[in-house]
Amino acid sequence: MSLSSSPEASSVPEQEIFTLAVDGMGGDGGPEMVIAGLQIAADRHPGIKILLLGDSARLGEILPRYPKAASICTVRHTQAAVPMDMKPTAALRLRDSSMRVAMEVVSRKEAQGVVSAGNSGAMLALAKVIVRTMPGISRPAMAAISPTRKGDVVMLDLGANVTCDWRNLVEFAVMGEAFAKSVLGLPAPTIGLLNVGAEELKGDEKLRHAADVLRDSPLASQFHGFIEGDDITAGTTDVVVTDGFTGNVALKTGEGVLRMASSLFRQVFQSSFAGRVAYLLVRPALHRMREWLDPRRYNGAVFVGLNGVVVKSHGGTDAVGFAAAVDVAVDMVRHGFNDSMKSRLSRMESLTVRRTDANASVETEVVTAL
Amino acid sequence: MSLSSSPEASSVPEQEIFTLAVDGMGGDGGPEMVIAGLQIAADRHPGIKILLLGDSARLGEILPRYPKAASICTVRHTQAAVPMDMKPTAALRLRDSSMRVAMEVVSRKEAQGVVSAGNSGAMLALAKVIVRTMPGISRPAMAAISPTRKGDVVMLDLGANVTCDWRNLVEFAVMGEAFAKSVLGLPAPTIGLLNVGAEELKGDEKLRHAADVLRDSPLASQFHGFIEGDDITAGTTDVVVTDGFTGNVALKTGEGVLRMASSLFRQVFQSSFAGRVAYLLVRPALHRMREWLDPRRYNGAVFVGLNGVVVKSHGGTDAVGFAAAVDVAVDMVRHGFNDSMKSRLSRMESLTVRRTDANASVETEVVTAL
Repeated sequence: MSLSSSPEASSVPEQEIFTLAVDGMGGDGGPEMVIAGLQIAADRHPGIKILLLGDSARLGEILPRYPKAASICTVRHTQAAVPMDMKPTAALRLRDSSMRVAMEVVSRKEAQGVVSAGNSGAMLALAKVIVRTMPGISRPAMAAISPTRKGDVVMLDLGANVTCDWRNLVEFAVMGEAFAKSVLGLPAPTIGLLNVGAEELKGDEKLRHAADVLRDSPLASQFHGFIEGDDITAGTTDVVVTDGFTGNVALKTGEGVLRMASSLFRQVFQSSFAGRVAYLLVRPALHRMREWLDPRRYNGAVFVGLNGVVVKSHGGTDAVGFAAAVDVAVDMVRHGFNDSMKSRLSRMESLTVRRTDANASVETEVVTAL
Repeated sequence: MSLSSSPEASSVPEQEIFTLAVDGMGGDGGPEMVIAGLQIAADRHPGIKILLLGDSARLGEILPRYPKAASICTVRHTQAAVPMDMKPTAALRLRDSSMRVAMEVVSRKEAQGVVSAGNSGAMLALAKVIVRTMPGISRPAMAAISPTRKGDVVMLDLGANVTCDWRNLVEFAVMGEAFAKSVLGLPAPTIGLLNVGAEELKGDEKLRHAADVLRDSPLASQFHGFIEGDDITAGTTDVVVTDGFTGNVALKTGEGVLRMASSLFRQVFQSSFAGRVAYLLVRPALHRMREWLDPRRYNGAVFVGLNGVVVKSHGGTDAVGFAAAVDVAVDMVRHGFNDSMKSRLSRMESLTVRRTDANASVETEVVTAL
């Protein structure tokens, strides 16, 4: 992940100290995994402070074994933890959970961001209620980075919003662009709108209208237009914008295909003696390939569009993956993701308000009505 | 592709002769590719007759070089060909095109099915207008077979319908089940409804309602419930049902990821001398893997829900791929796909009519409204 600074963001200089709130109780690996991850993060980001929320007795037992983590952590006790399978509505009612208090700390500006490997649905619900949606944004989205044939791509929404209108899609474009600037360090990320064809008349009305608005916006020069599913890994654009249903299905479909390909490739080396010899010959290259595709390297989905940096680590991750999620939070705080987004939003606002859905009657292909 | 017969279908016995109408002018490879494909098909299916539509002068020039193809083909001259980039609306106005006449031949029952590698949009439009939608089906869908870690999967809709309601999804399940029976030869294919989570409350109302209807239908015992993107390649179900937008994006995303993985694998073998030696050692196993994933093996998307078998070959395919598309048409005709679907539809009908959209108010997670 690049740390090159984005020119227009009011950024926190690298030497300046800032605080991240970390949910010590989230994730399948529990406090031990979180603290082992913070040990790695402490090495990479000596300038950060961690406010670690959770059961102080358990955290206090583990921390002495991770002295670097201990050196950047302050523990604050919380009574409860949100179970991984708890319904969001129940998590909202649960007082004094480590996840809830982490959000409260960010909303009081005691910390600039929060990282948790806990229950995603609970995290989104708590973030909406406590950290709150940024003015000018109707709904936060879930964004993450994936590998492509050219470099990394930012994709959103990955499931925070099952149904979206054109306004949501335009906002996702604004948030995705700011995210690619902060976390990938690109000066002018290009944006594609996921559709079933690249032609202007493809897709439904909300897609065509979102494209019209973007073509007529301050983001026009970075807006590539419609892209298709295979453009994601082709690296056609730096940002891929889609609704949360399609984004979630595309992400998981891609993960599934990659697992199938890896398993086939393993069979090539395991199916014969010659294969095992070949494996020894290409082991270093295979290792590089595996590292490059390592899902832990891409850990750290972000809920964008909130009044603070909110990073969700995969629940099943290990310390290396958790440290990558902390990297994302550090990049976003350091490169002023939220400020950069606010300034972009104020320039977009007049435009979006001017347009209404009534305007959106675009010529529809006759065939769809046959 | 399995040819084992489906028990309930009124099938055409293997020795019985039937006719397929083939568009001789469609596809990037043109008549030469089509006829070379028919040469392969003639070997595999000695019992079929081909009515080949197109420019008789051009077809007559090529056919003598493919004697096996010539032995099963009757050429019928048509004046025009639908260009690959023609709008569907324009293709509908084009009289005497090879694609249009192929559809007319099927609608007059001169042939039992049609195969074309031409323009997809034009093909769907002409099929709807000329072959017409089957009684009991509101909209035809595009289905195809893909490889999974366990076997093959039937997926639909792949783009014929950008927006769908619950009724369309239920119909897709019926059509996909009949397709898996005919073409994969499965006695009782399982069905999954693509969603962003497996829990019953996930997704939007049309998905939850379609699931309710299927759980309460003659297909109940084969209905697995909701599945996620990574279930497609995991082979969790034999049939994956989704709307045409999501299906198209998922299919193309998967293709893109597979291309990226293949290119990474190639680099492993090309990046060093040791790699080139290793390649020689595992060449047979790599060859088998490549054959198994060969997109030509999965060529032949089908427009299901029409009064005839309509198979769309990929436009960029070669003779081997075109022959695979002919295989699909032969399987569907031979195993009585359309009859099997009609009998299933009559058993579903009373059920679907009984239910109305007004019924569909399912409890919605509070979080989505926050």
